[in-house]
Amino acid sequence: MHLELDGTGALYEQLTRALKRGILGGHLGGGSKLPATRDLASDLQVSRNTVLTAYDLLCSEQLAVARGGSGTYVAHNMAPRTSPSARYTVRPQSRYAARTRRLGPNMLARTQASVRYDLHCGEPLLSPSLVSAWRNELGKAALHTELRYPPLQGLPVLRQAICDHIARRRGVLADPDDVVIVSGTQQALSLVARVLLDDVHRVVIEDPRYELAFQALRAHGCRIVSVRTDEDGLVTSDLPKASVRLVYVTPSHQFPSGSTMSLSRRMELLAYASERRCWILEDDYDGEFRFDSKPIPALRSLDVRDRVIYVGSFSKIVFPSLRLGYVVCPKALVGDLVAAKKLADLGCPAIEQTAMAEFIRSGRLERHLRRGTAELRRRRNCLIDGIRSHAGKHIRLIDSRAGMHLTGWLPGFTYARLAKLIELGRQRGLGLHAIHHHYSVVPDTPGLILGFASLSHIQIGNATKVLGACLDDV
Amino acid sequence: MHLELDGTGALYEQLTRALKRGILGGHLGGGSKLPATRDLASDLQVSRNTVLTAYDLLCSEQLAVARGGSGTYVAHNMAPRTSPSARYTVRPQSRYAARTRRLGPNMLARTQASVRYDLHCGEPLLSPSLVSAWRNELGKAALHTELRYPPLQGLPVLRQAICDHIARRRGVLADPDDVVIVSGTQQALSLVARVLLDDVHRVVIEDPRYELAFQALRAHGCRIVSVRTDEDGLVTSDLPKASVRLVYVTPSHQFPSGSTMSLSRRMELLAYASERRCWILEDDYDGEFRFDSKPIPALRSLDVRDRVIYVGSFSKIVFPSLRLGYVVCPKALVGDLVAAKKLADLGCPAIEQTAMAEFIRSGRLERHLRRGTAELRRRRNCLIDGIRSHAGKHIRLIDSRAGMHLTGWLPGFTYARLAKLIELGRQRGLGLHAIHHHYSVVPDTPGLILGFASLSHIQIGNATKVLGACLDDV
Repeated sequence: MHLELDGTGALYEQLTRALKRGILGGHLGGGSKLPATRDLASDLQVSRNTVLTAYDLLCSEQLAVARGGSGTYVAHNMAPRTSPSARYTVRPQSRYAARTRRLGPNMLARTQASVRYDLHCGEPLLSPSLVSAWRNELGKAALHTELRYPPLQGLPVLRQAICDHIARRRGVLADPDDVVIVSGTQQALSLVARVLLDDVHRVVIEDPRYELAFQALRAHGCRIVSVRTDEDGLVTSDLPKASVRLVYVTPSHQFPSGSTMSLSRRMELLAYASERRCWILEDDYDGEFRFDSKPIPALRSLDVRDRVIYVGSFSKIVFPSLRLGYVVCPKALVGDLVAAKKLADLGCPAIEQTAMAEFIRSGRLERHLRRGTAELRRRRNCLIDGIRSHAGKHIRLIDSRAGMHLTGWLPGFTYARLAKLIELGRQRGLGLHAIHHHYSVVPDTPGLILGFASLSHIQIGNATKVLGACLDDV
Repeated sequence: MHLELDGTGALYEQLTRALKRGILGGHLGGGSKLPATRDLASDLQVSRNTVLTAYDLLCSEQLAVARGGSGTYVAHNMAPRTSPSARYTVRPQSRYAARTRRLGPNMLARTQASVRYDLHCGEPLLSPSLVSAWRNELGKAALHTELRYPPLQGLPVLRQAICDHIARRRGVLADPDDVVIVSGTQQALSLVARVLLDDVHRVVIEDPRYELAFQALRAHGCRIVSVRTDEDGLVTSDLPKASVRLVYVTPSHQFPSGSTMSLSRRMELLAYASERRCWILEDDYDGEFRFDSKPIPALRSLDVRDRVIYVGSFSKIVFPSLRLGYVVCPKALVGDLVAAKKLADLGCPAIEQTAMAEFIRSGRLERHLRRGTAELRRRRNCLIDGIRSHAGKHIRLIDSRAGMHLTGWLPGFTYARLAKLIELGRQRGLGLHAIHHHYSVVPDTPGLILGFASLSHIQIGNATKVLGACLDDV
């Protein structure tokens, strides 16, 4: 009898699994006698005790039966079975699964890890000093954090710290009872969709759009209406006359175009929402990094009718693999959102929440943001200077007063030529990312999203040189 | 003009917010002149610079306009607005929200924090030594964990460690490519529901049932069929003849009855699933804590047709506020499950994953489990002895070879008398929990779930004394 040991764990465990595979696979039929322990031991070059233990375990699992002196037999109810197939596919088992299979790729993933300079905008600024600071917070937090199930809505100490933080930085006055801790903007979107949207409901998203928000809404199942944006943000005069349940916007720094929503547009949007009793989701993903005097307060700070669901995340301002964010929720929706959070995952990890609360309370987050903004300004200026000097005649750069990326348009370029440019860049170790993937209506002029957060100013300088050379050569 | 400063942040920020509230609240109408900076400064007893800064900020937000010498005016497009209402309710905005509002209370929450001895089963064993061990793991992990967006499916190093662990402890041979890291059993349920279930689909759950699984499925929206269990687990002969999409079971230790599913029932369930091409979700919530020789291998270890979705969690075996678990997924469903995880939260926090991988790899988890099992056995024996000696004539105790709770039945009791007992217990500092809340068909005999994990053996001794006294007095 051929038995293959898989090398995992103790010998008797390997032997038990091998015999079990034989029994379940039908190679050892129901009622058949297992080899004498002495014979099997010598066949396999293992001790007889190993075999005895394995047989005992099979019996304790009722897969085999020991018959006094006559030996051990495979249980009778073991009919031969076929072995499992290799990776195979089934048709989508739910409408949700069917929709997810139709979605595009994950825009956050680096296109090619191979590339030397990737002007990707999914990767924020990461500072080594942050690692040790965060490590200390975690260590302290681990000592005095409650280990039992955390409060579903989030730790009160963190919700209070967030209220103080956004009052200072974003002009948002929030009640800790209206804050729900989530594991980031993505979860906020998914929970808000569950609480607000059925498949019949209309949702307005910006065009161009943040792809993962679009994907979350598309997968959830609802009617998506794209409304164009310009240099003043969402064009509110284009908002649908038909009933709308939710408007998803990035007012502080439209993604990816980079525009900031003007006050009059903000007022029009708020009026639209309160007239139609619909909701606004404000995704403030990088509103804290602004390069002019003061950050522009969040849309939520103008929301006297309590229609704005404000979503903040620590992914961009601290680090993405932290997976922590928050929702400032209209009072009418807090209960439903907490219920959705409970059923989604019973709340966020507690130690991280304690650590983040102290990170905010101690002022370390504020310092980190000041340093981060200064460093981002430096990198942004390098990108602007580099492009002006190496690629100025090809690229029309749209400046932006906030965030981690700029947009560069290529007047006179065809999309074929853009594809060539991106491929040439790849060959020369430069990761370039077209902007039109984010548009529902592809613009006439091709353009690039130029992320500058994850490269040093020296790298950015080199990247722009390579970019200039590529542009000259296509 | 009355202005109320909220005391949060710098004075100029407080003043800006107060003025903004005045403008947005309509108390300062569009076009009206703001007080002269000197007057306001002396009114409020603040420096004139504070007022100047506040006015500048209002102008930068276009809420006010500075007119050379003549002063600062409220912008004209500011119509008077009503102030926000206090916490109010709206009708459910989605079918999901409507369903969640109809759900029962959260069974994990302690009934009364006031109670001295709570025989609650939602609280696992927590050891102080674990805290320092986990703290060290976190500290080490923080130093070498990737800060960028984590892999959606989970860190490969953790998926590998889990495969080794469950091969050793649960007899499950899994391929790391089929493991998806989730934030616990609750998220596993919610994601599996999204991938497998539309509202037309039937799901079988056990009766009695784990309430949070029931709630997640109910909220998701599907047709729930309860099938009774006995001392051999799910009564497979009662499985519906109609088409079923998913069967949710707790075979290692049925919750809350405590029975273990027999081999023949396991085989019948697997046959049922493969004949009907339906799926089985095996919730192995505490299968690792067994008090007899070896843990019984998971149902998944018998699954040669790849129909079992195996769900493991670190909530019970490490600590609940960690929020980390895993799914061993049939190959056919891995892609859909990872897509659902991506859209739900973009993956689990990375530092915890690194720490858990090392916690397993180093053998610390295994040691922790050995110690934990020994301690749980001690506490369980205390509970059994205590009840035999103090409440033996009232309670028929059902022993169980695994887990963190026992069930005690009260023959001859009415439900009215049970209610009296629970109330009397509460008055005397004893938290008692009726089992019938977990049944869809309320049993004739009332009973209690007796959780013993979160109390020391001394506390358990005292608790049983109090229980005995209460039983004699009702």
